[in-house]
Amino acid sequence: MPGSNLNEPRVLRDPVHGYIHITSPVIWRLLDTPEFQRLRRIRQLGGVFQVYHTAEHSRFSHSLGVYEIVRRMTEEVPDIGGSLSRQEKLVVLCAALLHDVGHGPYSHSFERLSHCSHEQMTMRLILENTDIHTVLAEADPSLPAQVAAVIQGTCPNPLLCDLISSQLDADRMDYLLRDAYETGTSYGTFDLERILRCLRVKNGRLCIKESGMHSVEDYIMARYHMYWQVYLHPVARAYEVMLQLFFDRYSEVRSQLKIDLLENVFRLSELTCFLELDDYRLVTGLQQASVSDDRILADLADRLLNRRLFDWIEEPDPSQEFQIRQRLEQAGLPTLFYLREDVSGSKVYLPYHEDRAQIRVLCADGEVRNLSHQSAIVSALDTMKPSVSRRLYFPKEAGLCLQNEAAGGKND
Amino acid sequence: MPGSNLNEPRVLRDPVHGYIHITSPVIWRLLDTPEFQRLRRIRQLGGVFQVYHTAEHSRFSHSLGVYEIVRRMTEEVPDIGGSLSRQEKLVVLCAALLHDVGHGPYSHSFERLSHCSHEQMTMRLILENTDIHTVLAEADPSLPAQVAAVIQGTCPNPLLCDLISSQLDADRMDYLLRDAYETGTSYGTFDLERILRCLRVKNGRLCIKESGMHSVEDYIMARYHMYWQVYLHPVARAYEVMLQLFFDRYSEVRSQLKIDLLENVFRLSELTCFLELDDYRLVTGLQQASVSDDRILADLADRLLNRRLFDWIEEPDPSQEFQIRQRLEQAGLPTLFYLREDVSGSKVYLPYHEDRAQIRVLCADGEVRNLSHQSAIVSALDTMKPSVSRRLYFPKEAGLCLQNEAAGGKND
Amino acid sequence: MPGSNLNEPRVLRDPVHGYIHITSPVIWRLLDTPEFQRLRRIRQLGGVFQVYHTAEHSRFSHSLGVYEIVRRMTEEVPDIGGSLSRQEKLVVLCAALLHDVGHGPYSHSFERLSHCSHEQMTMRLILENTDIHTVLAEADPSLPAQVAAVIQGTCPNPLLCDLISSQLDADRMDYLLRDAYETGTSYGTFDLERILRCLRVKNGRLCIKESGMHSVEDYIMARYHMYWQVYLHPVARAYEVMLQLFFDRYSEVRSQLKIDLLENVFRLSELTCFLELDDYRLVTGLQQASVSDDRILADLADRLLNRRLFDWIEEPDPSQEFQIRQRLEQAGLPTLFYLREDVSGSKVYLPYHEDRAQIRVLCADGEVRNLSHQSAIVSALDTMKPSVSRRLYFPKEAGLCLQNEAAGGKND
Amino acid sequence: MPGSNLNEPRVLRDPVHGYIHITSPVIWRLLDTPEFQRLRRIRQLGGVFQVYHTAEHSRFSHSLGVYEIVRRMTEEVPDIGGSLSRQEKLVVLCAALLHDVGHGPYSHSFERLSHCSHEQMTMRLILENTDIHTVLAEADPSLPAQVAAVIQGTCPNPLLCDLISSQLDADRMDYLLRDAYETGTSYGTFDLERILRCLRVKNGRLCIKESGMHSVEDYIMARYHMYWQVYLHPVARAYEVMLQLFFDRYSEVRSQLKIDLLENVFRLSELTCFLELDDYRLVTGLQQASVSDDRILADLADRLLNRRLFDWIEEPDPSQEFQIRQRLEQAGLPTLFYLREDVSGSKVYLPYHEDRAQIRVLCADGEVRNLSHQSAIVSALDTMKPSVSRRLYFPKEAGLCLQNEAAGGKND
Repeated sequence: MPGSNLNEPRVLRDPVHGYIHITSPVIWRLLDTPEFQRLRRIRQLGGVFQVYHTAEHSRFSHSLGVYEIVRRMTEEVPDIGGSLSRQEKLVVLCAALLHDVGHGPYSHSFERLSHCSHEQMTMRLILENTDIHTVLAEADPSLPAQVAAVIQGTCPNPLLCDLISSQLDADRMDYLLRDAYETGTSYGTFDLERILRCLRVKNGRLCIKESGMHSVEDYIMARYHMYWQVYLHPVARAYEVMLQLFFDRYSEVRSQLKIDLLENVFRLSELTCFLELDDYRLVTGLQQASVSDDRILADLADRLLNRRLFDWIEEPDPSQEFQIRQRLEQAGLPTLFYLREDVSGSKVYLPYHEDRAQIRVLCADGEVRNLSHQSAIVSALDTMKPSVSRRLYFPKEAGLCLQNEAAGGKND
Repeated sequence: MPGSNLNEPRVLRDPVHGYIHITSPVIWRLLDTPEFQRLRRIRQLGGVFQVYHTAEHSRFSHSLGVYEIVRRMTEEVPDIGGSLSRQEKLVVLCAALLHDVGHGPYSHSFERLSHCSHEQMTMRLILENTDIHTVLAEADPSLPAQVAAVIQGTCPNPLLCDLISSQLDADRMDYLLRDAYETGTSYGTFDLERILRCLRVKNGRLCIKESGMHSVEDYIMARYHMYWQVYLHPVARAYEVMLQLFFDRYSEVRSQLKIDLLENVFRLSELTCFLELDDYRLVTGLQQASVSDDRILADLADRLLNRRLFDWIEEPDPSQEFQIRQRLEQAGLPTLFYLREDVSGSKVYLPYHEDRAQIRVLCADGEVRNLSHQSAIVSALDTMKPSVSRRLYFPKEAGLCLQNEAAGGKND
Repeated sequence: MPGSNLNEPRVLRDPVHGYIHITSPVIWRLLDTPEFQRLRRIRQLGGVFQVYHTAEHSRFSHSLGVYEIVRRMTEEVPDIGGSLSRQEKLVVLCAALLHDVGHGPYSHSFERLSHCSHEQMTMRLILENTDIHTVLAEADPSLPAQVAAVIQGTCPNPLLCDLISSQLDADRMDYLLRDAYETGTSYGTFDLERILRCLRVKNGRLCIKESGMHSVEDYIMARYHMYWQVYLHPVARAYEVMLQLFFDRYSEVRSQLKIDLLENVFRLSELTCFLELDDYRLVTGLQQASVSDDRILADLADRLLNRRLFDWIEEPDPSQEFQIRQRLEQAGLPTLFYLREDVSGSKVYLPYHEDRAQIRVLCADGEVRNLSHQSAIVSALDTMKPSVSRRLYFPKEAGLCLQNEAAGGKND
Repeated sequence: MPGSNLNEPRVLRDPVHGYIHITSPVIWRLLDTPEFQRLRRIRQLGGVFQVYHTAEHSRFSHSLGVYEIVRRMTEEVPDIGGSLSRQEKLVVLCAALLHDVGHGPYSHSFERLSHCSHEQMTMRLILENTDIHTVLAEADPSLPAQVAAVIQGTCPNPLLCDLISSQLDADRMDYLLRDAYETGTSYGTFDLERILRCLRVKNGRLCIKESGMHSVEDYIMARYHMYWQVYLHPVARAYEVMLQLFFDRYSEVRSQLKIDLLENVFRLSELTCFLELDDYRLVTGLQQASVSDDRILADLADRLLNRRLFDWIEEPDPSQEFQIRQRLEQAGLPTLFYLREDVSGSKVYLPYHEDRAQIRVLCADGEVRNLSHQSAIVSALDTMKPSVSRRLYFPKEAGLCLQNEAAGGKND
């Protein structure tokens, strides 16, 4: 009986949404799969907790939040509810819940090592031999493929993809609100209630009613600010850069010095290895590395565990870089593992250039137009030149006269 | 120069307090010790995240919060500021920050195993050979002993102990507010600003001005509700009960089946072992146990990791217990590791009986009286009979007709 | 077509509820009647704005809030929705919106003068020749009588009365939340979402599921605190006491000194006079009185307008009262208009004794029991002795050594 | 003893700032002047309550809020505290509290009638024979002139003017936060704490530290959104346009039909008349007008009192305007009093073009630069073409096929 309702909907208390309402037994059973429970052990914001100390929340909470927003979209927005069949509603709810299930710890760093994107891994966890697959297939044999199609963006009905993955999707909406709540910043707040009220479906695609345009402008600014103030904060980047350096070192020495807990990282293509790897195993691996015999590996691990983070220079000029290299050499710290350039570009952050897709505005005259055509604000943002932030990271002891007091520091 | 101010105070953003203000370089250096950074890896609320999924915050955040409330007490409450010497202020700030540093993962379960309370461990981390000790002693050789005395409650000036550990202390104030924020419940909220404004010192002890009594009543009710709704929630208790059963089993089999990551648990009296043990190592140990050869150990570990929690009966009668024992035997599940009684008594939760100490009220006539004498509400609460909740926990498959739908369930 | 839905529900933004959803055209039309628009000109909290300066909100907002809570009860609580016919839902929504429409400015003071309770006036505004009556009768000729019956508590289905007027009704829920929001105090907050989720109907009456009992305890404490901290605050009472003294004086002199704007007060039994009288006319009348020839009347008016409020003594003893009388005489201030005793008794505030009706708890065993039987907290509150606060009010210039620094003061 | 501190600072609870702290007896005495208490009777947001029903707050609350922000600036921002003498601090606190004291009801409409700006009136209330003047002069004879100079922008120390009236002043900060709180919209929120932390003084002028730039961008967007969503909302404008039409009519007929309460409007240049005129007297005057013999005057008054607001067309073309004129004639409604064009231009709203003054950014290199030079966002906003919204207002009964469902409507 696919998607049949629970006798009594169950609820989970949630600080962002008040309650998460679980109305379908399929969703209920998905929650209880080991693959989904594993998301409790993956932090949502990687190294951000090094600068915002309360950013300790997991992808589990975020996934529930995305599910809840999509549930509200399908139940409370008449246009969306009316455009979807009962089966499509179940499909999109499952996709919302599962969209991040393929994330490993510090995903972006690990994708580099494992040559395996989290999107691919999500597909495999839905389509291959997992408890998630079993729960979906038992409800309806076609469900796994349908859910995967929504997450991959290949669903025949593009509206389903719009809800999960577009410029105005439930994923972004939840993470902005949740990350703002958990960090204690106000940047990520915007008026979710108003946006939900103003969503419409026109020509089968998600639009925003013209009168909701200001709320969408506010949401776009929230994204812009969260990128610069939280996601790309140089201290958070320091942690991730150092993690890359640590694994570069470990790759080099692992033939002699095996740390079992870290070996999963090199076998992420095996599902069981992937499922075992979470923040907990990784950090415990760092602990073991910190008492290992390799001086460099042990040092980098200790820095990561005990927050002895690298310092950085913004937009270094060649002479500065030269000086830092010299000092590292004098200190016996090989630049291969103690110096790293990190580039964060506006391609990544600029809310609006991010995707090919535009936000559609349903105008009072019944026409659909692009947001950047309608909104003077967004159009003005479009004129911003893509900017790039290039930073050089290195241990404090190699520092010049420190320009960044915040470096050794904390958030501000 | 002990306690000399930083040139510019540093701040950490915090969702509960807005900002944490670090004004002394000693505090700054304490933050960066490995022993304090380790608190990032100890969850504040043990098993509560199994029922309130967002309760993922650490003792690191809480410790900063207690520090911040004490800082405000010493700087913003004239009576307190005026009663303390410069040195005493530094001592009490350090004590606030460090008061929980001796906590292990799931403290209360582990204290049973290790025969070592977290208070004792905190003393050792301050007084023995640690980075914390070094930082304190470098600022002032007498500082470690002074800080330890405040935490132990043996400080010559009882006002310092009142701020850290009393019926109206910064510890309780922060955890109520923080746990309420992180779980998304409203029970723990009370008017911190008002209470701070109404604090007074009389005869060298902390009092509340009579006009602040209603705010204190509100705070006492907040504690009462948080105990029943969050801290003693039967699902949270299920997790901790199962953890005890897991370690009971591991104690029995560890001579044959050693899991290195778990062995620290039996050597907590060694400081280095204690410092290595955190939630991360413990959970990774559970992962390893879940694939071990001991069927019972592996099963219990898997249940803990994947939230297959035990069910329970409140106040079971003998016939019910007999039936459950029978079913467990039929299912081949030894009751020694699959059945456990858990008693939560009002001694633990009743906000007011908890301590010997009363809250002092500074009345308009200049006299100090006990709160229960002044407040009709608190006096009424005092008439409540101490109640005890006795629950029997067991795997769902041994369940009778389930009375607790919430058992397999989530929070509500 | 009574109660037929609007094509698209309309919403009003509201800080307490997010949005007020207007789903029926009858409600929409009621909003636009002059009798309902008049509520914009009646402050919700009488003299409280003299101590909480932001308590400037009107009965209009509160009435919308009560409506919204009842709407959610009927739409979101399955037990309630399933117990009511379509017509009963419309009736109870109209009753929720209109329940306060008979309030005059500073109701309680005026009921004394006009010998006409706000409940009676509400009946008349619904049943006699008004725009409200027309809107209701056009939707359905029986509607006015049905709505009036719910407000009067004589409705054949007692569930409708439970929603509007009982220990756990939408009226109290909205005013606690709204008054807390507008004053900026936290006392009135409680978990509305949780209570809504736990409401049930058993034997045709409103109950709370046992698991929601803690939320109800919290709500009862919220009421208790709001009464003492806000509604019965001595400064707020000072304003209302002075208003009574002003009208006592005006009654005496009005045969010689007529102030047209104030004359309505003596003709409240005429609907048109009642409808003209609002805070705006009353305050403008005070302005005119403040420049009138009667010295006492002018003085009292000026004190009310410019916040020269009376001082007070709690529980005065005879010698104190004697002294004050002497000083008033010396100052030429007749005690008839410058001295007044005000008694606020726990009958008024004690949340639980207030009504004959108990809150019903639906226990896990299916039985309905009284809350005071189930809740140790409420049962403890029941043991509190009814307390009475007796205060003597008089001009500051007649004051003894002032015991109340707050008297001339502001809120704290 | 000018500006000497109170023995114990007094506080007023405030929902936006937590508490307002009154530290000086001069401020305390200013609060109690009739001229300042009168601000309780002037609504902060004119006609906005017609669309956001909870926007009922007064200029009294706002004035206290501006005072509190300036108090925090002078006490908590070291650069500001260090740049001001004790006397200058008192001057700027008084100026903050009094800056709006010259506002009448619906100021902007009335300035047109009275040929007297609220700034001029504020000067007179400080410099002429008033209780405010007395309080200031008693503290220090030069105080009235110094306070007036700050409000007029002629103060020798420009920093004082920066705090009260600049692109980054306490006035804007309070009204954005307060109006957002009271309307229940989220648009006006921004991070006040962060901005306060990042304020600096350089070359004697107020600057923002470069690291606080994102918070200022957020604040500028908050202003932009509040203008369009709240302050210039077409329904709020409808009310003010109708008020102008009402007074146009009254001016024409007042020689025959005198309504005493309204006559003050034509004598605002006399201080006593000005002080008597507040929202309360005006609304009571409308009530009297609504039962007067002049059909047009009575009709317009009734529409204002009972929210029968005009409809509007955005950017009407000549043929539409012609049609409406025809219908008004057919209905016997003279266009002179029933048709009005209203123009809201971006000059008024665009946050950045609003003033001549730029926001100064103190860059990491120690240089001060203009915000629009440093901020890509603000620079992008600068490229926005000034837009103008032209609306034609008229009674609904003259409407064409209504394009604005919201017109008869409420906020959304």
